[in-house]
Amino acid sequence: MKHISSRSNPEYKLLLRLSEGHHRGSQAVLEGVHLCQEWAARYGAPRFALFDAALLAREQGGELEALVRSGGSACASCEPALMRALSPVGQDQGVCFLVDVPQPQRPGRVDQNCLWLDRVQDPGNVGTLLRTAAAAGVGHAYLSPGCAAAWSAKVLRSAQGAHFAMAIYEHVDLAAEHARLAVPLLATSLQDGVSLYAQALPERCAWLFGNEGRGVDPALLQRADLKIFIPQAERVESLNVAAAAAVCLFEQRRQGLLHSASKA
Amino acid sequence: MKHISSRSNPEYKLLLRLSEGHHRGSQAVLEGVHLCQEWAARYGAPRFALFDAALLAREQGGELEALVRSGGSACASCEPALMRALSPVGQDQGVCFLVDVPQPQRPGRVDQNCLWLDRVQDPGNVGTLLRTAAAAGVGHAYLSPGCAAAWSAKVLRSAQGAHFAMAIYEHVDLAAEHARLAVPLLATSLQDGVSLYAQALPERCAWLFGNEGRGVDPALLQRADLKIFIPQAERVESLNVAAAAAVCLFEQRRQGLLHSASKA
Repeated sequence: MKHISSRSNPEYKLLLRLSEGHHRGSQAVLEGVHLCQEWAARYGAPRFALFDAALLAREQGGELEALVRSGGSACASCEPALMRALSPVGQDQGVCFLVDVPQPQRPGRVDQNCLWLDRVQDPGNVGTLLRTAAAAGVGHAYLSPGCAAAWSAKVLRSAQGAHFAMAIYEHVDLAAEHARLAVPLLATSLQDGVSLYAQALPERCAWLFGNEGRGVDPALLQRADLKIFIPQAERVESLNVAAAAAVCLFEQRRQGLLHSASKA
Repeated sequence: MKHISSRSNPEYKLLLRLSEGHHRGSQAVLEGVHLCQEWAARYGAPRFALFDAALLAREQGGELEALVRSGGSACASCEPALMRALSPVGQDQGVCFLVDVPQPQRPGRVDQNCLWLDRVQDPGNVGTLLRTAAAAGVGHAYLSPGCAAAWSAKVLRSAQGAHFAMAIYEHVDLAAEHARLAVPLLATSLQDGVSLYAQALPERCAWLFGNEGRGVDPALLQRADLKIFIPQAERVESLNVAAAAAVCLFEQRRQGLLHSASKA
Protein backbone atom coordinates (compact mmCIF):
# COMPACT_ATOMS: atom_id res chain seq x y z
CA MET A 1 0.00 0.00 0.00
CA LYS A 2 1.16 3.50 -0.80
CA HIS A 3 2.52 5.30 2.28
CA ILE A 4 2.15 9.05 2.71
CA SER A 5 4.73 10.78 4.86
CA SER A 6 4.51 14.33 3.53
CA ARG A 7 1.90 17.00 4.08
CA SER A 8 2.31 18.10 0.49
CA ASN A 9 0.83 14.89 -0.90
CA PRO A 10 -2.21 16.00 -2.96
CA GLU A 11 -4.68 13.47 -1.52
CA TYR A 12 -3.59 14.34 2.00
CA LYS A 13 -3.87 18.06 1.32
CA LEU A 14 -7.44 17.61 0.09
CA LEU A 15 -8.38 15.66 3.22
CA LEU A 16 -6.76 18.29 5.43
CA ARG A 17 -8.58 21.14 3.71
CA LEU A 18 -11.92 19.37 4.06
CA SER A 19 -11.30 18.50 7.72
CA GLU A 20 -10.43 22.13 8.42
CA GLY A 21 -13.80 23.20 7.11
CA HIS A 22 -12.99 24.24 3.56
CA HIS A 23 -16.04 22.43 2.34
CA ARG A 24 -16.50 21.98 -1.39
CA GLY A 25 -20.08 20.81 -1.25
CA SER A 26 -19.60 17.75 -3.41
CA GLN A 27 -16.94 15.95 -1.34
CA ALA A 28 -16.60 15.24 2.35
CA VAL A 29 -14.15 13.61 4.72
CA LEU A 30 -15.35 11.07 7.30
CA GLU A 31 -13.12 10.58 10.33
CA GLY A 32 -12.86 7.49 12.49
CA VAL A 33 -13.78 3.83 12.33
CA HIS A 34 -17.41 4.30 13.32
CA LEU A 35 -18.37 6.78 10.59
CA CYS A 36 -16.36 4.93 7.95
CA GLN A 37 -18.06 1.64 8.84
CA GLU A 38 -21.46 3.35 8.63
CA TRP A 39 -20.56 4.75 5.22
CA ALA A 40 -19.34 1.37 4.00
CA ALA A 41 -22.50 -0.38 5.18
CA ARG A 42 -24.74 2.09 3.39
CA TYR A 43 -22.82 3.37 0.39
CA GLY A 44 -19.96 0.87 -0.13
CA ALA A 45 -16.43 1.97 -0.99
CA PRO A 46 -15.35 5.58 -0.59
CA ARG A 47 -13.47 7.50 -3.25
CA PHE A 48 -10.22 7.27 -1.28
CA ALA A 49 -9.22 5.93 2.14
CA LEU A 50 -6.35 6.90 4.41
CA PHE A 51 -5.27 4.52 7.18
CA ASP A 52 -3.04 4.69 10.18
CA ALA A 53 -0.72 1.67 9.95
CA ALA A 54 -1.64 0.61 13.51
CA LEU A 55 -5.31 0.33 12.55
CA LEU A 56 -4.50 -1.75 9.44
CA ALA A 57 -2.86 -4.34 11.69
CA ARG A 58 -6.17 -4.79 13.54
CA GLU A 59 -9.23 -6.69 12.32
CA GLN A 60 -11.40 -3.56 11.96
CA GLY A 61 -8.80 -1.92 9.77
CA GLY A 62 -8.27 -5.01 7.66
CA GLU A 63 -12.01 -5.30 7.00
CA LEU A 64 -12.27 -1.66 5.97
CA GLU A 65 -9.23 -2.00 3.71
CA ALA A 66 -10.71 -5.08 2.03
CA LEU A 67 -13.92 -3.20 1.42
CA VAL A 68 -12.13 -0.22 -0.10
CA ARG A 69 -10.09 -2.44 -2.38
CA SER A 70 -13.11 -4.51 -3.43
CA GLY A 71 -14.74 -1.29 -4.60
CA GLY A 72 -11.70 -0.52 -6.74
CA SER A 73 -10.86 2.60 -4.71
CA ALA A 74 -7.40 3.84 -3.83
CA CYS A 75 -6.09 3.69 -0.31
CA ALA A 76 -2.92 4.70 1.48
CA SER A 77 -1.37 4.59 4.90
CA CYS A 78 0.19 7.58 6.62
CA GLU A 79 2.30 8.69 9.56
CA PRO A 80 0.41 9.00 12.88
CA ALA A 81 1.34 12.68 13.04
CA LEU A 82 -0.41 13.32 9.73
CA MET A 83 -3.50 11.45 10.90
CA ARG A 84 -3.58 13.45 14.13
CA ALA A 85 -3.39 16.69 12.16
CA LEU A 86 -6.70 15.78 10.50
CA SER A 87 -8.48 15.78 13.85
CA PRO A 88 -9.58 19.03 15.52
CA VAL A 89 -8.63 17.61 18.89
CA GLY A 90 -5.34 16.16 17.71
CA GLN A 91 -6.47 12.55 18.15
CA ASP A 92 -5.47 9.80 15.76
CA GLN A 93 -8.83 8.61 14.43
CA GLY A 94 -7.25 5.65 12.65
CA VAL A 95 -8.96 6.10 9.30
CA CYS A 96 -10.43 8.78 7.05
CA PHE A 97 -12.65 8.30 4.02
CA LEU A 98 -12.90 10.80 1.19
CA VAL A 99 -16.45 10.46 -0.15
CA ASP A 100 -18.82 12.02 -2.63
CA VAL A 101 -21.65 13.68 -0.72
CA PRO A 102 -24.88 11.67 -1.21
CA GLN A 103 -27.54 13.53 -3.14
CA PRO A 104 -30.77 11.75 -2.20
CA GLN A 105 -33.74 12.47 -4.43
CA ARG A 106 -36.46 14.45 -2.69
CA PRO A 107 -39.85 12.74 -2.47
CA GLY A 108 -42.43 14.21 -4.84
CA ARG A 109 -44.81 14.57 -1.92
CA VAL A 110 -43.64 15.43 1.59
CA ASP A 111 -45.76 13.22 3.80
CA GLN A 112 -43.17 12.07 6.31
CA ASN A 113 -42.35 13.44 9.73
CA CYS A 114 -39.47 15.74 8.87
CA LEU A 115 -37.12 18.51 10.00
CA TRP A 116 -36.99 21.82 8.11
CA LEU A 117 -34.07 24.13 8.83
CA ASP A 118 -34.14 27.73 7.66
CA ARG A 119 -30.64 29.29 7.57
CA VAL A 120 -29.34 27.58 10.72
CA GLN A 121 -25.77 28.69 10.32
CA ASP A 122 -23.79 27.25 13.21
CA PRO A 123 -22.34 23.85 12.24
CA GLY A 124 -22.59 22.59 15.82
CA ASN A 125 -26.29 23.46 15.88
CA VAL A 126 -26.99 21.78 12.52
CA GLY A 127 -25.13 18.66 13.67
CA THR A 128 -26.95 18.55 17.01
CA LEU A 129 -30.29 19.12 15.25
CA LEU A 130 -29.65 16.15 12.93
CA ARG A 131 -28.50 13.98 15.85
CA THR A 132 -31.60 14.89 17.88
CA ALA A 133 -33.92 14.33 14.92
CA ALA A 134 -32.41 10.90 14.25
CA ALA A 135 -32.82 9.99 17.92
CA ALA A 136 -36.45 11.11 17.78
CA GLY A 137 -37.03 8.88 14.76
CA VAL A 138 -37.28 11.69 12.20
CA GLY A 139 -35.97 10.33 8.91
CA HIS A 140 -35.82 13.36 6.61
CA ALA A 141 -34.15 16.76 6.91
CA TYR A 142 -34.64 19.70 4.52
CA LEU A 143 -31.98 22.40 4.72
CA SER A 144 -32.39 25.81 3.11
CA PRO A 145 -29.56 27.73 1.45
CA GLY A 146 -27.67 29.51 4.24
CA CYS A 147 -27.60 26.49 6.52
CA ALA A 148 -24.16 25.11 7.46
CA ALA A 149 -23.14 22.44 4.93
CA ALA A 150 -24.49 19.15 6.26
CA TRP A 151 -21.45 17.10 5.22
CA SER A 152 -18.86 19.58 6.47
CA ALA A 153 -16.42 18.23 9.07
CA LYS A 154 -17.91 20.19 11.99
CA VAL A 155 -21.48 19.13 11.26
CA LEU A 156 -20.40 15.50 10.85
CA ARG A 157 -18.64 15.63 14.22
CA SER A 158 -21.67 17.04 16.06
CA ALA A 159 -24.13 14.71 14.35
CA GLN A 160 -22.37 11.53 15.54
CA GLY A 161 -23.59 9.32 12.72
CA ALA A 162 -27.09 10.81 12.27
CA HIS A 163 -26.23 11.28 8.58
CA PHE A 164 -26.61 7.54 8.17
CA ALA A 165 -29.98 7.35 9.90
CA MET A 166 -31.74 9.92 7.72
CA ALA A 167 -32.03 11.43 4.25
CA ILE A 168 -30.64 14.97 4.15
CA TYR A 169 -31.69 17.35 1.38
CA GLU A 170 -29.64 20.53 1.03
CA HIS A 171 -30.14 23.86 -0.74
CA VAL A 172 -33.89 23.37 -0.61
CA ASP A 173 -36.16 26.33 -1.43
CA LEU A 174 -38.46 25.77 1.55
CA ALA A 175 -41.13 28.17 0.28
CA ALA A 176 -41.35 26.17 -2.97
CA GLU A 177 -41.20 22.88 -1.09
CA HIS A 178 -44.22 24.01 0.91
CA ALA A 179 -46.37 23.37 -2.17
CA ARG A 180 -45.48 19.67 -1.93
CA LEU A 181 -46.18 19.43 1.77
CA ALA A 182 -48.89 16.91 2.67
CA VAL A 183 -48.46 17.17 6.45
CA PRO A 184 -48.91 20.23 8.71
CA LEU A 185 -46.08 22.76 8.99
CA LEU A 186 -45.23 23.50 12.64
CA ALA A 187 -42.94 26.33 13.69
CA THR A 188 -41.76 27.68 17.01
CA SER A 189 -42.49 31.35 17.41
CA LEU A 190 -42.14 33.75 20.32
CA GLN A 191 -45.16 35.71 19.09
CA ASP A 192 -48.80 34.65 18.83
CA GLY A 193 -48.08 30.97 19.27
CA VAL A 194 -49.90 28.39 21.36
CA SER A 195 -48.23 26.38 24.11
CA LEU A 196 -46.48 23.19 23.01
CA TYR A 197 -48.10 21.50 25.98
CA ALA A 198 -51.62 22.59 25.10
CA GLN A 199 -51.46 20.73 21.81
CA ALA A 200 -52.27 17.28 20.55
CA LEU A 201 -49.34 17.18 18.13
CA PRO A 202 -49.79 15.53 14.74
CA GLU A 203 -48.19 12.13 14.31
CA ARG A 204 -46.37 13.45 11.26
CA CYS A 205 -45.51 17.04 10.43
CA ALA A 206 -42.73 19.27 9.15
CA TRP A 207 -40.90 20.90 12.07
CA LEU A 208 -39.54 24.27 11.02
CA PHE A 209 -36.66 25.87 12.95
CA GLY A 210 -34.88 29.07 12.01
CA ASN A 211 -31.68 31.05 12.14
CA GLU A 212 -29.98 31.51 15.53
CA GLY A 213 -30.43 35.26 15.64
CA ARG A 214 -33.28 36.06 13.30
CA GLY A 215 -35.49 33.01 13.63
CA VAL A 216 -37.64 31.70 10.78
CA ASP A 217 -38.07 33.86 7.69
CA PRO A 218 -41.36 35.78 8.23
CA ALA A 219 -42.80 34.80 4.83
CA LEU A 220 -42.20 31.15 5.66
CA LEU A 221 -43.51 31.53 9.22
CA GLN A 222 -46.77 32.88 7.79
CA ARG A 223 -47.32 29.57 6.05
CA ALA A 224 -47.09 27.58 9.27
CA ASP A 225 -50.24 25.67 10.13
CA LEU A 226 -49.38 25.93 13.80
CA LYS A 227 -47.13 28.35 15.61
CA ILE A 228 -46.07 27.11 19.00
CA PHE A 229 -44.06 28.39 21.90
CA ILE A 230 -42.24 26.45 24.59
CA PRO A 231 -43.45 27.67 28.00
CA GLN A 232 -40.28 28.82 29.71
CA ALA A 233 -39.32 30.80 32.77
CA GLU A 234 -39.85 34.55 32.56
CA ARG A 235 -37.13 37.09 31.89
CA VAL A 236 -34.60 34.71 30.37
CA GLU A 237 -33.43 34.42 26.78
CA SER A 238 -35.15 31.93 24.50
CA LEU A 239 -33.71 28.46 24.09
CA ASN A 240 -30.91 27.62 21.71
CA VAL A 241 -32.43 26.33 18.46
CA ALA A 242 -31.15 22.78 18.97
CA ALA A 243 -32.45 22.68 22.55
CA ALA A 244 -35.85 23.99 21.37
CA ALA A 245 -35.97 21.28 18.71
CA ALA A 246 -35.11 18.60 21.30
CA VAL A 247 -38.03 19.73 23.46
CA CYS A 248 -40.48 19.79 20.51
CA LEU A 249 -39.44 16.57 18.77
CA PHE A 250 -39.43 14.58 22.01
CA GLU A 251 -42.79 16.02 23.10
CA GLN A 252 -44.15 14.70 19.79
CA ARG A 253 -42.43 11.39 20.47
CA ARG A 254 -43.84 11.25 24.01
CA GLN A 255 -47.37 11.83 22.74
CA GLY A 256 -46.89 9.26 19.98
CA LEU A 257 -45.65 6.60 22.42
CA LEU A 258 -48.55 7.35 24.75
CA HIS A 259 -51.01 7.05 21.87
CA SER A 260 -49.50 3.72 20.72
CA ALA A 261 -49.61 2.37 24.27
CA SER A 262 -53.26 3.34 24.73
CA LYS A 263 -54.19 1.62 21.45
CA ALA A 264 -52.30 -1.57 22.31
CA MET B 1 -11.45 59.25 29.00
CA LYS B 2 -8.31 57.32 28.28
CA HIS B 3 -8.16 56.08 24.68
CA ILE B 4 -6.45 52.80 23.78
CA SER B 5 -5.10 52.52 20.28
CA SER B 6 -2.44 49.84 20.74
CA ARG B 7 -2.76 46.12 21.20
CA SER B 8 0.11 46.21 23.65
CA ASN B 9 -1.87 48.16 26.26
CA PRO B 10 -1.89 45.92 29.39
CA GLU B 11 -5.64 46.21 30.10
CA TYR B 12 -6.43 45.43 26.46
CA LYS B 13 -4.06 42.47 26.42
CA LEU B 14 -5.77 40.99 29.48
CA LEU B 15 -9.22 41.36 27.88
CA LEU B 16 -7.93 39.79 24.66
CA ARG B 17 -6.42 36.83 26.48
CA LEU B 18 -9.64 36.22 28.40
CA SER B 19 -11.80 36.54 25.28
CA GLU B 20 -9.55 34.04 23.50
CA GLY B 21 -10.24 31.50 26.20
CA HIS B 22 -7.18 31.87 28.42
CA HIS B 23 -9.40 31.76 31.44
CA ARG B 24 -7.86 32.58 34.80
CA GLY B 25 -10.76 31.41 36.91
CA SER B 26 -11.03 34.53 39.01
CA GLN B 27 -11.63 37.08 36.23
CA ALA B 28 -13.88 37.09 33.19
CA VAL B 29 -14.67 39.33 30.25
CA LEU B 30 -18.28 40.13 29.36
CA GLU B 31 -18.91 41.20 25.77
CA GLY B 32 -21.74 43.36 24.52
CA VAL B 33 -24.31 45.75 25.87
CA HIS B 34 -26.76 43.09 26.98
CA LEU B 35 -24.39 41.10 29.21
CA CYS B 36 -22.80 44.26 30.62
CA GLN B 37 -26.21 45.70 31.50
CA GLU B 38 -27.15 42.43 33.19
CA TRP B 39 -23.92 42.53 35.19
CA ALA B 40 -24.47 46.14 36.19
CA ALA B 41 -28.02 45.45 37.34
CA ARG B 42 -26.94 42.55 39.50
CA TYR B 43 -23.39 43.27 40.62
CA GLY B 44 -22.83 46.99 39.97
CA ALA B 45 -19.63 48.35 38.50
CA PRO B 46 -17.09 46.05 36.84
CA ARG B 47 -13.38 46.15 37.56
CA PHE B 48 -12.68 47.83 34.21
CA ALA B 49 -14.75 48.78 31.17
CA LEU B 50 -13.72 49.23 27.55
CA PHE B 51 -16.01 51.17 25.21
CA ASP B 52 -16.21 51.75 21.51
CA ALA B 53 -16.46 55.52 21.02
CA ALA B 54 -19.59 55.11 18.87
CA LEU B 55 -21.41 53.41 21.74
CA LEU B 56 -20.41 56.12 24.21
CA ALA B 57 -22.18 58.66 22.01
CA ARG B 58 -25.44 56.75 22.44
CA GLU B 59 -27.69 56.70 25.52
CA GLN B 60 -26.98 53.03 26.36
CA GLY B 61 -23.27 53.71 26.35
CA GLY B 62 -23.57 56.87 28.39
CA GLU B 63 -25.60 55.06 31.04
CA LEU B 64 -23.09 52.25 31.30
CA GLU B 65 -20.21 54.74 31.51
CA ALA B 66 -21.94 56.65 34.31
CA LEU B 67 -22.43 53.41 36.20
CA VAL B 68 -18.79 52.39 35.83
CA ARG B 69 -17.60 55.80 37.00
CA SER B 70 -20.03 55.89 39.93
CA GLY B 71 -18.48 52.64 41.13
CA GLY B 72 -15.05 54.20 41.02
CA SER B 73 -13.84 51.83 38.30
CA ALA B 74 -11.57 52.68 35.43
CA CYS B 75 -12.81 52.86 31.88
CA ALA B 76 -11.33 53.55 28.48
CA SER B 77 -12.37 53.85 24.87
CA CYS B 78 -10.64 52.06 22.01
CA GLU B 79 -10.36 51.81 18.26
CA PRO B 80 -13.17 49.82 16.57
CA ALA B 81 -10.56 47.41 15.16
CA LEU B 82 -9.40 46.56 18.68
CA MET B 83 -12.98 45.99 19.83
CA ARG B 84 -13.65 43.75 16.83
CA ALA B 85 -10.57 41.68 17.67
CA LEU B 86 -12.16 40.80 21.03
CA SER B 87 -15.08 39.10 19.29
CA PRO B 88 -14.77 35.57 17.90
CA VAL B 89 -16.89 36.56 14.92
CA GLY B 90 -15.12 39.87 14.36
CA GLN B 91 -18.12 41.99 15.36
CA ASP B 92 -17.79 45.20 17.30
CA GLN B 93 -19.76 44.44 20.48
CA GLY B 94 -19.56 48.06 21.65
CA VAL B 95 -18.45 47.38 25.20
CA CYS B 96 -16.53 44.85 27.29
CA PHE B 97 -16.46 44.54 31.07
CA LEU B 98 -13.60 42.97 32.98
CA VAL B 99 -15.17 41.46 36.09
CA ASP B 100 -14.32 39.33 39.10
CA VAL B 101 -16.11 36.02 38.79
CA PRO B 102 -18.94 35.83 41.36
CA GLN B 103 -18.40 33.19 44.04
CA PRO B 104 -21.88 32.56 45.41
CA GLN B 105 -22.01 30.69 48.69
CA ARG B 106 -23.45 27.23 48.38
CA PRO B 107 -26.60 26.56 50.42
CA GLY B 108 -25.97 24.36 53.45
CA ARG B 109 -28.81 22.12 52.36
CA VAL B 110 -29.56 21.41 48.70
CA ASP B 111 -33.33 21.49 48.52
CA GLN B 112 -33.82 23.41 45.29
CA ASN B 113 -34.42 22.12 41.79
CA CYS B 114 -30.87 22.14 40.44
CA LEU B 115 -28.50 21.08 37.68
CA TRP B 116 -25.46 18.92 38.47
CA LEU B 117 -22.77 18.64 35.81
CA ASP B 118 -20.08 15.99 36.08
CA ARG B 119 -17.03 16.79 33.90
CA VAL B 120 -18.97 18.28 30.98
CA GLN B 121 -15.97 19.56 29.12
CA ASP B 122 -17.20 21.25 25.97
CA PRO B 123 -17.79 24.97 26.65
CA GLY B 124 -20.64 25.11 24.13
CA ASN B 125 -22.38 22.27 25.95
CA VAL B 126 -21.91 23.86 29.39
CA GLY B 127 -23.25 27.17 28.05
CA THR B 128 -26.25 25.54 26.39
CA LEU B 129 -26.95 23.52 29.54
CA LEU B 130 -27.00 26.69 31.64
CA ARG B 131 -29.20 28.48 29.10
CA THR B 132 -31.63 25.57 28.98
CA ALA B 133 -31.71 25.25 32.77
CA ALA B 134 -32.43 28.97 33.17
CA ALA B 135 -35.23 28.72 30.59
CA ALA B 136 -36.67 25.76 32.48
CA GLY B 137 -36.68 27.79 35.68
CA VAL B 138 -33.78 25.96 37.34
CA GLY B 139 -31.96 28.44 39.56
CA HIS B 140 -28.84 26.58 40.75
CA ALA B 141 -26.03 24.81 38.90
CA TYR B 142 -23.30 22.68 40.51
CA LEU B 143 -20.25 22.03 38.33
CA SER B 144 -17.63 19.42 39.19
CA PRO B 145 -13.91 19.88 38.57
CA GLY B 146 -13.28 19.01 34.92
CA CYS B 147 -16.25 21.00 33.63
CA ALA B 148 -15.51 23.88 31.26
CA ALA B 149 -15.04 27.08 33.28
CA ALA B 150 -18.49 28.64 33.61
CA TRP B 151 -17.27 32.23 33.19
CA SER B 152 -14.98 31.54 30.24
CA ALA B 153 -15.74 33.48 27.06
CA LYS B 154 -17.11 30.50 25.13
CA VAL B 155 -19.46 29.41 27.90
CA LEU B 156 -20.69 32.98 28.37
CA ARG B 157 -21.42 33.23 24.64
CA SER B 158 -23.43 29.99 24.54
CA ALA B 159 -25.30 30.73 27.74
CA GLN B 160 -26.75 34.04 26.47
CA GLY B 161 -27.22 35.63 29.86
CA ALA B 162 -28.20 32.53 31.85
CA HIS B 163 -25.38 33.39 34.26
CA PHE B 164 -27.57 36.21 35.56
CA ALA B 165 -30.64 34.05 36.05
CA MET B 166 -29.00 31.45 38.27
CA ALA B 167 -26.37 30.77 40.94
CA ILE B 168 -23.43 28.82 39.55
CA TYR B 169 -21.16 26.86 41.90
CA GLU B 170 -17.89 25.61 40.40
CA HIS B 171 -15.28 23.04 41.44
CA VAL B 172 -17.89 21.22 43.51
CA ASP B 173 -17.09 17.74 44.82
CA LEU B 174 -20.43 16.25 43.81
CA ALA B 175 -19.95 13.06 45.83
CA ALA B 176 -19.43 15.15 48.98
CA GLU B 177 -22.29 17.47 48.03
CA HIS B 178 -24.55 14.44 47.85
CA ALA B 179 -24.53 14.30 51.67
CA ARG B 180 -26.25 17.71 51.70
CA LEU B 181 -28.86 16.76 49.15
CA ALA B 182 -32.43 16.99 50.41
CA VAL B 183 -34.12 16.27 47.09
CA PRO B 184 -33.86 13.14 44.89
CA LEU B 185 -30.86 12.75 42.58
CA LEU B 186 -31.93 11.92 39.00
CA ALA B 187 -29.50 10.81 36.32
CA THR B 188 -29.86 9.74 32.71
CA SER B 189 -28.38 6.34 32.07
CA LEU B 190 -28.39 4.07 29.04
CA GLN B 191 -28.39 1.03 31.31
CA ASP B 192 -31.06 -0.19 33.74
CA GLY B 193 -32.99 3.04 33.73
CA VAL B 194 -36.74 3.61 33.56
CA SER B 195 -38.41 5.60 30.81
CA LEU B 196 -38.60 9.36 31.37
CA TYR B 197 -42.19 9.18 30.20
CA ALA B 198 -43.18 6.45 32.66
CA GLN B 199 -42.34 8.68 35.60
CA ALA B 200 -44.13 11.19 37.75
CA LEU B 201 -41.10 13.44 38.10
CA PRO B 202 -40.44 15.16 41.43
CA GLU B 203 -41.21 18.85 41.56
CA ARG B 204 -37.67 19.48 42.77
CA CYS B 205 -34.62 17.30 42.25
CA ALA B 206 -30.95 17.40 41.31
CA TRP B 207 -30.53 16.58 37.61
CA LEU B 208 -27.17 14.94 37.03
CA PHE B 209 -25.58 14.94 33.55
CA GLY B 210 -22.14 13.63 32.69
CA ASN B 211 -19.15 13.89 30.43
CA GLU B 212 -19.75 13.84 26.66
CA GLY B 213 -17.92 10.60 26.06
CA ARG B 214 -17.89 8.79 29.37
CA GLY B 215 -21.16 9.85 30.93
CA VAL B 216 -21.61 10.20 34.68
CA ASP B 217 -18.90 8.85 36.99
CA PRO B 218 -20.08 5.31 37.97
CA ALA B 219 -19.62 5.93 41.72
CA LEU B 220 -21.83 9.00 41.44
CA LEU B 221 -24.36 7.24 39.22
CA GLN B 222 -24.75 4.58 41.88
CA ARG B 223 -26.04 7.21 44.27
CA ALA B 224 -28.83 8.29 41.94
CA ASP B 225 -32.30 7.80 43.39
CA LEU B 226 -33.67 7.37 39.89
CA LYS B 227 -31.91 6.39 36.68
CA ILE B 228 -33.88 7.30 33.63
CA PHE B 229 -33.52 6.88 29.89
CA ILE B 230 -35.04 8.92 27.10
CA PRO B 231 -36.93 6.59 24.77
CA GLN B 232 -35.30 7.17 21.42
CA ALA B 233 -35.28 5.54 18.02
CA GLU B 234 -33.30 2.32 17.71
CA ARG B 235 -29.83 2.02 16.25
CA VAL B 236 -28.84 5.67 16.57
CA GLU B 237 -26.34 7.29 18.89
CA SER B 238 -27.55 8.72 22.16
CA LEU B 239 -28.47 12.37 22.40
CA ASN B 240 -25.95 15.14 22.94
CA VAL B 241 -25.83 15.94 26.68
CA ALA B 242 -27.39 19.38 26.26
CA ALA B 243 -30.21 17.98 24.12
CA ALA B 244 -30.84 15.22 26.67
CA ALA B 245 -31.01 17.82 29.44
CA ALA B 246 -33.48 19.91 27.41
CA VAL B 247 -35.78 16.91 27.05
CA CYS B 248 -35.58 16.02 30.77
CA LEU B 249 -35.86 19.52 32.24
CA PHE B 250 -38.79 20.45 30.04
CA GLU B 251 -40.58 17.16 30.72
CA GLN B 252 -40.34 18.07 34.39
CA ARG B 253 -41.59 21.55 33.55
CA ARG B 254 -44.49 20.14 31.50
CA GLN B 255 -45.56 17.90 34.37
CA GLY B 256 -45.23 20.76 36.84
CA LEU B 257 -47.38 23.09 34.72
CA LEU B 258 -49.98 20.36 34.28
CA HIS B 259 -50.02 19.75 38.02
CA SER B 260 -50.41 23.49 38.79
CA ALA B 261 -53.23 23.78 36.24
CA SER B 262 -55.11 20.82 37.69
CA LYS B 263 -54.84 22.30 41.19
CA ALA B 264 -56.03 25.74 40.06
